[in-house]
Amino acid sequence: MLVDGKSWRTIWPGEDGKSVEIIDQTRLPFELVTVRLEQLEDAARAITEMLVRGAPLIGATAAYGFWLGIRDCADDVRMQAAAKQLIACRPTAVNLRWAVDRMQAVLAPLAPEQRAQAARAEADRIAEEDVATNAAIGRHGLALIRAVWERKRETVQILTHCNAGWLATVDWGTALAPVYAAQEAGIPLHVFVDETRPRNQGASLTAWELGKAGIPHHLLADNAGGHLMQHGKIDLCIVGSDRTTASGDVCNKIGTYLKALAAKANGVPFYVALPGSTVDWTLSDGVAQIPIEERSADEVLTIQGQAEDGRVLRLRLAPETTPACNPAFDVTPADLVTGIITERGVCPASRAGLAARFPEQARP
Amino acid sequence: MLVDGKSWRTIWPGEDGKSVEIIDQTRLPFELVTVRLEQLEDAARAITEMLVRGAPLIGATAAYGFWLGIRDCADDVRMQAAAKQLIACRPTAVNLRWAVDRMQAVLAPLAPEQRAQAARAEADRIAEEDVATNAAIGRHGLALIRAVWERKRETVQILTHCNAGWLATVDWGTALAPVYAAQEAGIPLHVFVDETRPRNQGASLTAWELGKAGIPHHLLADNAGGHLMQHGKIDLCIVGSDRTTASGDVCNKIGTYLKALAAKANGVPFYVALPGSTVDWTLSDGVAQIPIEERSADEVLTIQGQAEDGRVLRLRLAPETTPACNPAFDVTPADLVTGIITERGVCPASRAGLAARFPEQARP
Repeated sequence: MLVDGKSWRTIWPGEDGKSVEIIDQTRLPFELVTVRLEQLEDAARAITEMLVRGAPLIGATAAYGFWLGIRDCADDVRMQAAAKQLIACRPTAVNLRWAVDRMQAVLAPLAPEQRAQAARAEADRIAEEDVATNAAIGRHGLALIRAVWERKRETVQILTHCNAGWLATVDWGTALAPVYAAQEAGIPLHVFVDETRPRNQGASLTAWELGKAGIPHHLLADNAGGHLMQHGKIDLCIVGSDRTTASGDVCNKIGTYLKALAAKANGVPFYVALPGSTVDWTLSDGVAQIPIEERSADEVLTIQGQAEDGRVLRLRLAPETTPACNPAFDVTPADLVTGIITERGVCPASRAGLAARFPEQARP
Repeated sequence: MLVDGKSWRTIWPGEDGKSVEIIDQTRLPFELVTVRLEQLEDAARAITEMLVRGAPLIGATAAYGFWLGIRDCADDVRMQAAAKQLIACRPTAVNLRWAVDRMQAVLAPLAPEQRAQAARAEADRIAEEDVATNAAIGRHGLALIRAVWERKRETVQILTHCNAGWLATVDWGTALAPVYAAQEAGIPLHVFVDETRPRNQGASLTAWELGKAGIPHHLLADNAGGHLMQHGKIDLCIVGSDRTTASGDVCNKIGTYLKALAAKANGVPFYVALPGSTVDWTLSDGVAQIPIEERSADEVLTIQGQAEDGRVLRLRLAPETTPACNPAFDVTPADLVTGIITERGVCPASRAGLAARFPEQARP
């Protein structure tokens, strides 16, 4: 995507041929800073500390991190250690495991001395496939937005939660890919952006992306979306997914479930945009089976922002002795999801719906 | 309530006999600062800028403010000007109009020279009645908490939104009055506190109150409550109300509606604790009839907290050009409310339920 006229991705190979560069998303929206990853540990830290986040981008970073981890020594022991270290970084993101499994499957049959070059090529392929996947999600989602526009002939009002834009992927995004496609198609639209506490990815990333892309939007407290839907101010919700069951349950950023409940109660279509790689075909009951990452209480008790003098600071919001709990994701059951926007088209949030789109991956 | 061993209320007459003192709640939880109100304009500013907030406390502050406004000159012109100025301060709080109407009704029949003394006495009565009302709400709500305790014999888990504690009233609170009563009764309980963006009254006021009272609690992002209910971690929700229709629809802090939807979906009892004075008997449809205060975008775009060096600062959370919308309240329809806890007992959230408790106020 363009940022101030220059084309960007979220991750790209370094010009030195032995590193990877990323945007440090913890510095947005206040500074656009890039970071060079030179070894596996750098990639692991980037994932754990959320310099990169978003299921598809985590997958791509893990793939490049795997390459960095075996670049100098690619025996089976090193391969397994790299896989283990990467998978431990974020428990919820199924793409992380998916990318690591794919790297292992491609590299294992090769002789150790061939693996480094093959790993780099495979990581590049994963990144390029992600871009193509998201472009396809954009095309399929565009049809949904266009249908609202053709019926309504007024600005299409979209609500999104967290950041599932190009910053969450290598490029284009998942939930925002249809928004960018609709903008290119000349459809007038406006996006309501949940700030998405505690880490505020909506305020810091989605608002930044949409602003840079020139898409009209308003930021709002996470509390406000139900009220807007109750008053007919939202035409459709589009969110992303970090992990999806074979039955269509969707695990996404904490708070997604509350918006899905409000959408259902008010007859607002609720779509989830996701690449097939986020589907965990071994799972059938998201609420019971998906472990939810409990993150640091400090994310709730403190917040980062920019002071008047330009400094980026972290402030404490609560009394010093206050404890906090911080589940990072929740599960939206399939019956609250109007449809899933995949790179292969829109399908019902059900086992049959997903299996029809991904027959080669669906298990009986 | 006790704060560090000293007994406090949120508002009290000044020792000089011609002023009123309040806690400046915009400084909490970082500093406990009191402010002296000497004239009507001070009271109006305290309400508008939310040094005091919470429907019952706004009512008491308006009553004392009315006294301050007519203390030196109490002719009919001054009375009407005082009423008009106070009512304009916050559009949603029905208690504001209720208190002002009551002051006018008591004072209008009196000769102007008698009005100042009578106004002070009536404001004192409103404050004392609020304390008694909330104590009664506490007793009635205690029975609900006790029932959970007797069934479960494990710590009772309560979720609350915003601040409807003693800081929202003259003393005891509405939603938290049952919690304080249960603590006194020796029932083990734990409170999940929604931080309540954008103004974070949960993080800054409820967490502070509960901490000072020694009640176990955890702060959480507003996004998290649905997930907790989905996993059976909440026994009941108790919130307050700023305005209630005769039919039992409840207008409360933005985000209340989302928690009520989650409670309904997961079979969690959802109670609203409110004094009869918050019921607007002229209203029958909260979503259609209650105007929702749209507050400054800066409340969403910025946040106040304490830096490491102890200074209380405001930080910007979003890009400089990002616009925000900020509806301050939402309406929870009566069918999502399990029961209303009033000073006259618990009743169904319905016209019949409320009318049975307040027959002298209910209209046919």
